[in-house]
Amino acid sequence: MLDALRAAFGERVSTADAVRAHHGRDESPFDPQLPDAVVFAHSADDVREVVSLCSLYSVPLIPHGAGSSLEGHLLAVRGGISLDLSEMNRVLSINAEDLTVTVEPGITRKALNEALRDTGLFFPIDPGADASIGGMTATRASGTNAVRYGTMRENVLGLTAVLADGRVVKTGSRARKSSAGYDLTRLFVGSEGTLGVITEITLRLHPLPEAVSAAICTFPSMGDAVRTVIETIQIGVPIARVEFVDALAVRSINRHSNLTLTEAPTLFFEFHGTEAGVKEQAELVQALAGQNNGQGFEWATRPEDRTRLWAARHNAYFAMLQLKPGCRAVTTDVCVPISQLAACVEETEVDLRASSLPCPIVGHVGDGNFHVAILIDPDKPEEIAEAEHINDRIVERALRLGGTCTGEHGVGLHKMRFLPKEHGDNAIDTMRAIKLALDPRNLMNPGKIFTC
Amino acid sequence: MLDALRAAFGERVSTADAVRAHHGRDESPFDPQLPDAVVFAHSADDVREVVSLCSLYSVPLIPHGAGSSLEGHLLAVRGGISLDLSEMNRVLSINAEDLTVTVEPGITRKALNEALRDTGLFFPIDPGADASIGGMTATRASGTNAVRYGTMRENVLGLTAVLADGRVVKTGSRARKSSAGYDLTRLFVGSEGTLGVITEITLRLHPLPEAVSAAICTFPSMGDAVRTVIETIQIGVPIARVEFVDALAVRSINRHSNLTLTEAPTLFFEFHGTEAGVKEQAELVQALAGQNNGQGFEWATRPEDRTRLWAARHNAYFAMLQLKPGCRAVTTDVCVPISQLAACVEETEVDLRASSLPCPIVGHVGDGNFHVAILIDPDKPEEIAEAEHINDRIVERALRLGGTCTGEHGVGLHKMRFLPKEHGDNAIDTMRAIKLALDPRNLMNPGKIFTC
Repeated sequence: MLDALRAAFGERVSTADAVRAHHGRDESPFDPQLPDAVVFAHSADDVREVVSLCSLYSVPLIPHGAGSSLEGHLLAVRGGISLDLSEMNRVLSINAEDLTVTVEPGITRKALNEALRDTGLFFPIDPGADASIGGMTATRASGTNAVRYGTMRENVLGLTAVLADGRVVKTGSRARKSSAGYDLTRLFVGSEGTLGVITEITLRLHPLPEAVSAAICTFPSMGDAVRTVIETIQIGVPIARVEFVDALAVRSINRHSNLTLTEAPTLFFEFHGTEAGVKEQAELVQALAGQNNGQGFEWATRPEDRTRLWAARHNAYFAMLQLKPGCRAVTTDVCVPISQLAACVEETEVDLRASSLPCPIVGHVGDGNFHVAILIDPDKPEEIAEAEHINDRIVERALRLGGTCTGEHGVGLHKMRFLPKEHGDNAIDTMRAIKLALDPRNLMNPGKIFTC
Repeated sequence: MLDALRAAFGERVSTADAVRAHHGRDESPFDPQLPDAVVFAHSADDVREVVSLCSLYSVPLIPHGAGSSLEGHLLAVRGGISLDLSEMNRVLSINAEDLTVTVEPGITRKALNEALRDTGLFFPIDPGADASIGGMTATRASGTNAVRYGTMRENVLGLTAVLADGRVVKTGSRARKSSAGYDLTRLFVGSEGTLGVITEITLRLHPLPEAVSAAICTFPSMGDAVRTVIETIQIGVPIARVEFVDALAVRSINRHSNLTLTEAPTLFFEFHGTEAGVKEQAELVQALAGQNNGQGFEWATRPEDRTRLWAARHNAYFAMLQLKPGCRAVTTDVCVPISQLAACVEETEVDLRASSLPCPIVGHVGDGNFHVAILIDPDKPEEIAEAEHINDRIVERALRLGGTCTGEHGVGLHKMRFLPKEHGDNAIDTMRAIKLALDPRNLMNPGKIFTC
């Protein structure tokens, strides 16, 4: 197998320890599990060739983008090849008139928006990390704008994938809607590399809003903040972003980004629309915040202030890690129906107060999604156990309240054990039947989402 | 099989010719193909029992909702049981706080909105017919509001289905987003009864807008009208509805609904938002229409005028049928990227002018989707052949322009031959592999979408 890979890819095959170590880990707290070799793909043809060789030699294959998974997606739990797609990072075509773009999977979200700079359009999905579009597609990612613009589910129009046997499948089209057969696009979105390797993605773009304004507001409790969000959604304000950050997370952001935000439960808001529309939305939300004990509603009117605020929010994950030097984070990712959000976070706060570990909270609360970053010393098994116990309780609570164990990070290794409880055995068996129909020898990112 | 059904369901099993005839046809121009028997289900348990018997005796099963398919979905091409779900029409729970509702599949879209009347919420998806929610889910339906609110793809949060072997699968959750495994919800949305019988559906609802305004405007040509729509979408106006109706379709609407609209290419607009927002949107669009030679921009400000206008639009299909007494319609349903819409409709107009058949056009042009209703005498094979020839050319054109053969009606029997051209053989083989993994004996609505 290695000889065949070397014959085909020469220097682009590596078995060096450092390269394998870099590809056998991600941002999850799991110990690395190294692939046997790493191949750097430059084209869809390269991908097809690697997949075909893996098929020929029955070797597992793990697609690799930016390496920013939080759930262990990239760990080579059964060895095999890590297929690095980060150099397949071209924009293949921009169709500004249709508000679509077609890209290779390795391009990151920031590089994509950079490439779109002169079009008047943008791609809104923004996980904390500068993730690759391929990885975001594979994990059905979202971020701070999902409350207005949807997730990868709504924003991938079509894609090309190489199946386990080397066949190439093209799904969807550039039309905004279609009823032409099974929705293979949505099947690959969120499949976490287990059904094939995505080599091309067509995305929906959105016009840059004419006007943007941002604001922050603090609250005496998380419950008050969350109730403000629930009411905002319920009356139909088309808010573009609404993010919760708890006092501890604000402190970490202040330190990391050199800001002086009040260290209290806080909502970050952003409004998109026309000048008049943005003003109207913001006044409505300010009134709701006031009714829920919001204090110090402050506007970030200058673009540079807005950018600084949101950059600080996007860096929250890395800021939080610095609360405990040398730590890693066990990140929870539950998402619940919006009416259950206040109950879910308030019950969770009780758990966190009883914990010895620092547990800052941030959340895409407009979607009912929040993250607790449980900061552990990876060398202390008792801290790992405590973090897992907290996570278990949060997930159990979210499922009881009609929600999901993962709103946007994917299942990977870390959420596998919750899946049967969330969906029931019949649904997992159905997923497994689909997987085995498309990848009968279980070579594509095996051991993730469910076991086969 | 019949004895077992009768033992279980008594009077609710029918083999009467009239009942079978009613269930072996739909709104498509195809000749009826009768099922061997019809069973009327009252509960998910009934469905499970019928599916289990069909599995036991290897008998095909076709789910039946409102019977409004335009593509032959309901024809019993291989005989078997028609499972009538129209009496499973309850609202199971309304969660107004979460903007969700859970229903049985037989409820129609109008009955659902009637049930929501006191909640301040509505369900926006509105195909022309008063279709069942189950049928709309199974065909990934949309309608006039999709440009703003999305299609069934975006508005089904989760569902329960009975698989071919009688197992019950629950998909999704009431959370607004999730990355928890394969998107089985989206797999069933658009599966046209070929993967199982849907017994319960959770839908996303939307707040009734504070303000609504509607307008109509005529244009010297369809190209001018379509260009107005393209520009509206491109600058990001969140228009709620924008419908194209050609001169012939306006004539049919005038006759059927007793109106006096100008018989010229026309756009129907609707704007949803706050009072100020609606005014701003409408002014923007009126200016764009003016730049594209729009004339006689007229407001329907009173709710009763608005309702009359949209009722007329919704009845367009039946109005058009009356242009030619005794006719049936071969309805095209292509959807193209919005930049290609003007080219697609203008080339299509050339074909239609050369035809001897009346061919009115209506379209959900904000999505790039339009319908030609080719009116044929079903007893004249030469008219059927001409209609199919026109349809072939329209589909060929849409695919060449990067579009799809069906924007919202589904594949059924009628679009099957276009599917390999649209998606490629590998994608169809992938769909078939999924189908056979879940229904190895091909009992669930066999012979639709693709052959097995």
